[in-house]
Amino acid sequence: LTASFACPPGFLDRLDSFSEIGSTGDGGVDRVEASPANGLARRELARRMEAAGCEVRVDGIGNMFGLMPLAQQTAGQDAPWVFAGSHIDSQPKGGRLDGAYGVLAAVEAAGTLRDRLNGQKPRANLGVVAWTSEEGARFQPSLLGSSVHAGILPLEQALARKDGSGVSVADALDAIGFRGTQEAPKPAAYVELHVECAPELERSGTRLGVFDRWWGAHKLELLFSGATAHTGPTPMAMRKDALLAAAEVITGLRRLADAAPAGALHTSVGRLEVLPNSPNVVPDQAKLFVEIRSADAGVMADAHARLLELIPYAAAIARVTHRIVRDEYRAPGAFAPGLRDLARATAAEFGQTPQGLETIAAHDAMPMARICPSVVVAVPSRDGLCHSPREWTEPADLELGVAWLGAMLERLVLDGPPVS
Amino acid sequence: LTASFACPPGFLDRLDSFSEIGSTGDGGVDRVEASPANGLARRELARRMEAAGCEVRVDGIGNMFGLMPLAQQTAGQDAPWVFAGSHIDSQPKGGRLDGAYGVLAAVEAAGTLRDRLNGQKPRANLGVVAWTSEEGARFQPSLLGSSVHAGILPLEQALARKDGSGVSVADALDAIGFRGTQEAPKPAAYVELHVECAPELERSGTRLGVFDRWWGAHKLELLFSGATAHTGPTPMAMRKDALLAAAEVITGLRRLADAAPAGALHTSVGRLEVLPNSPNVVPDQAKLFVEIRSADAGVMADAHARLLELIPYAAAIARVTHRIVRDEYRAPGAFAPGLRDLARATAAEFGQTPQGLETIAAHDAMPMARICPSVVVAVPSRDGLCHSPREWTEPADLELGVAWLGAMLERLVLDGPPVS
Repeated sequence: LTASFACPPGFLDRLDSFSEIGSTGDGGVDRVEASPANGLARRELARRMEAAGCEVRVDGIGNMFGLMPLAQQTAGQDAPWVFAGSHIDSQPKGGRLDGAYGVLAAVEAAGTLRDRLNGQKPRANLGVVAWTSEEGARFQPSLLGSSVHAGILPLEQALARKDGSGVSVADALDAIGFRGTQEAPKPAAYVELHVECAPELERSGTRLGVFDRWWGAHKLELLFSGATAHTGPTPMAMRKDALLAAAEVITGLRRLADAAPAGALHTSVGRLEVLPNSPNVVPDQAKLFVEIRSADAGVMADAHARLLELIPYAAAIARVTHRIVRDEYRAPGAFAPGLRDLARATAAEFGQTPQGLETIAAHDAMPMARICPSVVVAVPSRDGLCHSPREWTEPADLELGVAWLGAMLERLVLDGPPVS
Repeated sequence: LTASFACPPGFLDRLDSFSEIGSTGDGGVDRVEASPANGLARRELARRMEAAGCEVRVDGIGNMFGLMPLAQQTAGQDAPWVFAGSHIDSQPKGGRLDGAYGVLAAVEAAGTLRDRLNGQKPRANLGVVAWTSEEGARFQPSLLGSSVHAGILPLEQALARKDGSGVSVADALDAIGFRGTQEAPKPAAYVELHVECAPELERSGTRLGVFDRWWGAHKLELLFSGATAHTGPTPMAMRKDALLAAAEVITGLRRLADAAPAGALHTSVGRLEVLPNSPNVVPDQAKLFVEIRSADAGVMADAHARLLELIPYAAAIARVTHRIVRDEYRAPGAFAPGLRDLARATAAEFGQTPQGLETIAAHDAMPMARICPSVVVAVPSRDGLCHSPREWTEPADLELGVAWLGAMLERLVLDGPPVS
């Protein structure tokens, strides 16, 4: 190879046109998993995968694979697969880059790579993938499709998960025609390009980042149950106010984060369901979705223990009962050293020295790391924003990211996946 | 009159059969204003009004009147009207007595009274009324229909109020066929029989209550606006979390009530709308429905002032902006002395001495008190519960209440309404 890998001309325009699917009119997109807009985006992605020369497959959880068996002639039927991808579902008021950028970059890098391989002998096949329901906005847990592919979550359990209206993943995928029946190979390496979703690269003025580690997370679903009563005459001391208990948890949880060393602990309540939610009825039910995140397993264990004290305290104040419906733990971990080295080596070809980062957001590369060497690489997010219509990355950085991903995939396809 | 007024036989069965409309299966009803179940209940009420000998009219805001022009022959076209009634809309998880008991009692008392008047010369006509949207569960403010009839709220403004889904009162009433065009007379006296919705009668072992005064109320709608962001990587100090601000108000408001003398101040947040309400997105919007109630105008003014300090404090903690969308005030007041005396005098015919009460819950008699002498009389609520499927009043007390209401109406129809 003489010329270094370049972003295909027109990539930014094609990214823009993809962002029109599910556009919220303010720069953002609403492509929540298995929504009509998500279905349209999936159809457009299939079209683009085919145009890039991929064979499109959809598996039982709706993961979309664009397969390019580059090495089967030279390395045989058992040639390993290198995967690149991300997700195209979004938050309800999501941004246009989170996920979709990495998928489209992988599709375009694959198409370009195919053309560059003329006469060479690849050791690995290439696959592009868009994982189902990464965001966890409509269905919990997040990382649903990649967790099924990695064998962490049984397919039947994943299909049975329900949204807030009681619609299952299975029915929702059927409704958009994307509950597939096809098999896909397991990769021997997985590379995910993503916008950073944090302000570190912008702060240091660095254009590329390599995630070395990921933060751990506790994700809990809490239910407080009281009794409906009239907000007027019911004596304050007799009320069993589920919303009050929820509010005590929300404020108490924030104080936990404020009391920790700066940046060591992130806490949040993003979703709160209140019933009956009438202005003059004491709420008898409040369901909270709580998150605790840290890079330090000790800090997280301590915060989790304090939360478990806070919950009955809040319930007692509000005279309600409490129940922990779900308490999921993801341990902190490290991405593959071989892929992190490769990312740094290829970045040098573009004159860049990537910054080492820790990802606090979850990525599909985390479940994939359970079955193969995996890594997430990043371009900057302005103001660190993700899950917002105000997501923004400089166009030149978006193009640089595509080229960098292409260069990495070229090395992986030609040399074969690393051992770790 | 020789025999004292008696509850019509079978009243309890007919109350039970009415409770089947919109039944929630747990003893409660869901007949939120202009819902399909509410439409069914309205049709059944019209049928019962006609069976009792009333002419049914529906006005522009959906109030249902059952008119019995008893005095027109003896006292002429300008004979005054005595009204009795309440409401048949309910909370989403409401009880079967709140409102419906008073309406059905009035219908049955009117039917019985008509039969007892044989040969006597009434000075007043009798009207039974079911007011639209007393509860304020779906449309705010509460007391909508009676406020329109009392001239406090212009009809067009009331029809334009929208529910959480953007459906107007006008469209909702049209959908169930109960936006009427008929006129109804203004009453010269209004009597409302209601379950107490508080525990005072039960505590004192008294079977009947007369509300002498009503508490005042501030009802506010607050909006906090922040910015969506990823709950993971976004540094805690950069978050603009609208739900956190809401939680600070909910807990702070409760502390205000706890700090006041026992029973002097009631505060609540019954409804909270969170957007986008996704588990891993910092909420950018939270709308709260806040209530402050007291019998003492000074206590309420002080609590209101402290709330107005709490709102910007909560906004500052959460780094969000705040807006007071609505701040409605209802001053405390007193019911008509003449009707309160009449209620006590007729109760004596049944061997009862009613307890004097203050109503903290709003009733349609409060707007009506602006145009004519009005009163609310009550039977006990077990555990003080209202707005709950667990509402309960002893059957014998329900029957006693109907007889008492009938006796009051008989006196009012024969003697004419009081001056005050």
